[in-house]
Amino acid sequence: MAEEGSVGIVETKYLTFAAPPNEMTLECGRTLGPITLAYETYGELNDARDNAILVVHALSGDAHAAGYHHPRDKHPGWWDIMIGAGRALDTRKYFIICSNIVGGCQGSTGPSSIDPRTGRPYGLSFPMVTIRDWVDTQKVLIDHLGITRLLCVMGGSTGGMQVLQWAVSYPDMVRLAIPIATTSRLSPQAIAFNEVGRMAIQSDPNWRDGDYYGKTLPRRGLAIARMIGHITYLSDRSMHQKFGRKLQDKSAYGYNFRTDFQVESYLRYKGDHFVNRFDANSYLYITKAMDYFDLTQANGNLEGAFAGVKAKFLIISFSSDWLFPTYMSKETASALRRAHAYVISTEIQTDYGHDAFLLESDQLSSLISNFLSQGMKQK
Amino acid sequence: MAEEGSVGIVETKYLTFAAPPNEMTLECGRTLGPITLAYETYGELNDARDNAILVVHALSGDAHAAGYHHPRDKHPGWWDIMIGAGRALDTRKYFIICSNIVGGCQGSTGPSSIDPRTGRPYGLSFPMVTIRDWVDTQKVLIDHLGITRLLCVMGGSTGGMQVLQWAVSYPDMVRLAIPIATTSRLSPQAIAFNEVGRMAIQSDPNWRDGDYYGKTLPRRGLAIARMIGHITYLSDRSMHQKFGRKLQDKSAYGYNFRTDFQVESYLRYKGDHFVNRFDANSYLYITKAMDYFDLTQANGNLEGAFAGVKAKFLIISFSSDWLFPTYMSKETASALRRAHAYVISTEIQTDYGHDAFLLESDQLSSLISNFLSQGMKQK
Repeated sequence: MAEEGSVGIVETKYLTFAAPPNEMTLECGRTLGPITLAYETYGELNDARDNAILVVHALSGDAHAAGYHHPRDKHPGWWDIMIGAGRALDTRKYFIICSNIVGGCQGSTGPSSIDPRTGRPYGLSFPMVTIRDWVDTQKVLIDHLGITRLLCVMGGSTGGMQVLQWAVSYPDMVRLAIPIATTSRLSPQAIAFNEVGRMAIQSDPNWRDGDYYGKTLPRRGLAIARMIGHITYLSDRSMHQKFGRKLQDKSAYGYNFRTDFQVESYLRYKGDHFVNRFDANSYLYITKAMDYFDLTQANGNLEGAFAGVKAKFLIISFSSDWLFPTYMSKETASALRRAHAYVISTEIQTDYGHDAFLLESDQLSSLISNFLSQGMKQK
Repeated sequence: MAEEGSVGIVETKYLTFAAPPNEMTLECGRTLGPITLAYETYGELNDARDNAILVVHALSGDAHAAGYHHPRDKHPGWWDIMIGAGRALDTRKYFIICSNIVGGCQGSTGPSSIDPRTGRPYGLSFPMVTIRDWVDTQKVLIDHLGITRLLCVMGGSTGGMQVLQWAVSYPDMVRLAIPIATTSRLSPQAIAFNEVGRMAIQSDPNWRDGDYYGKTLPRRGLAIARMIGHITYLSDRSMHQKFGRKLQDKSAYGYNFRTDFQVESYLRYKGDHFVNRFDANSYLYITKAMDYFDLTQANGNLEGAFAGVKAKFLIISFSSDWLFPTYMSKETASALRRAHAYVISTEIQTDYGHDAFLLESDQLSSLISNFLSQGMKQK
């Protein structure tokens, strides 16, 4: 873990706010408080306080974007390839904040948190949170850190939705925005996959209407939901390259219902692994927040939604991403241009599908690094 | 139901064979018998016995391809748009046979059938069946009908796999072959979707290792499997056109976990409807037969598999089919050409995705009708 450029050992921090009677009113009309938000920071805020970058994460991500929590950790944070000395988000130049989301299960307030009114986990009594709510809570964190204007907000997938929402909700606070592999409104196909995943969780008898904390967890349901999601993150071609029709630990078909193919074994592993680190109710709340995301909702159309934005945009999509295909990024880019925003929109050729934003890529790194450098100069 | 060209009222017929001690040996090495195959026929076999077309169906299809079983039936057979007087499969000219598959639940022997050795349903003691086995049993049916050479074998999706297997297994019996929206070997992505569907069924506590007959059925698991499948049968664009982000019976988000979007409601309906007509164990067996389908398996490569084929091929794919994309049909066509087969390969431009083969299409109809007419002339 002593590799060059690593941010090294880091610690997750927590900000708690909106304590009663000052609860935050959510988009759904209900209130929530107190709210804890988990976050990490890398690098130093400069004296001008103008080098701060907010990184926001996707469905299953967390505040731990870079470095290691313990010297013996096997894996670094989820975007370690991008964050560190000499990396695209260069910690010698920038102050990087990665914020978790409300409704999750990685240190921020969510359905598995204790409801102070009852002393028991919220479960399904947790209010529905939206991407606008996530951004509103992150705004409290940015204020707390003494930052009035972010150099950049960036993130992929559901993170990209937060980026767009940041530029719309707080136009004066965002100089640069980098939404990656994302959309301005979730497609019916993506809603459909989310709904089937939720049904798998809700059909698990151990789910018990969300009241399973301290009891047997709805592991099977969550594993199935994750497996469905995982297929949508890969491309057909990458699955051909990675697995093809190769068999798992056998030389001939088993002619039974145990695992035959490597791709089955891989998905089962991904599903099983996920349930050890993720809460099923959080999966329900987060996918629902994604489903509800539609920037045309408030203004009738995208151009209207983007009317007040001031950020400069670098929009990135991946050629083999079929969950958030390039046409969605183009739709966002066109609407932003009609709203007179500065937009660079680019598609990276890759076989890795939607997950490409999490993988090592010189092209992705240099696009982001150049965009940040130029933005930093043009004050 | 008295519409022009309809074959009118039809009846499913049944052929039973391979009674002990003459059981059929399956590809997996196990034996099965007696075997009942459900089938229907439309039109008349001519004196030369050279006008017979075998239609084979996809995952959830059955022997009832055209016409009605009862005067009050609301819907005709699954390919009624194609079969009838003046239709692409013109019953004034051709004798059409539609055969069901072993392992299914629509009148043919399958896991829900009574095992004569025990007097109880087979359940998971039913042997694994493959697409080669399906074709071998259909061959018994064709022999029984006194047909030594079929004018054509045709079908879409899993039906198309049977078409390819027919041309390989019984080259002297197939003059024309029309595989539609299919592949010579199932892709890892399709295997992955099948595996998640199977996991949903097997995770339903009512599934009880397949021993649920006469008890509560694993409805939720089967519904989820069907919903996953259904998403893969539609295209992203057709879902935009059909549903978009339209809400179901409400004018604003519900901010709860009940159905918000029409696409969710549609999928739930499709899932619930399916469990009333389909057996969960059959879903397991049929998807496994699909997974195992790989014509390169026996011969090392596709060209070798097709070395002995004598049929002329019309291969059809659909531009928006992402489950069996056109590149798969092209792969089959190229290998057939290298094996010196006569091949017409064409992609139909459509937004309807994989399901397009089941939908009204002048282009599909005229392609098939012309190919059949020309083949019928060239004896």
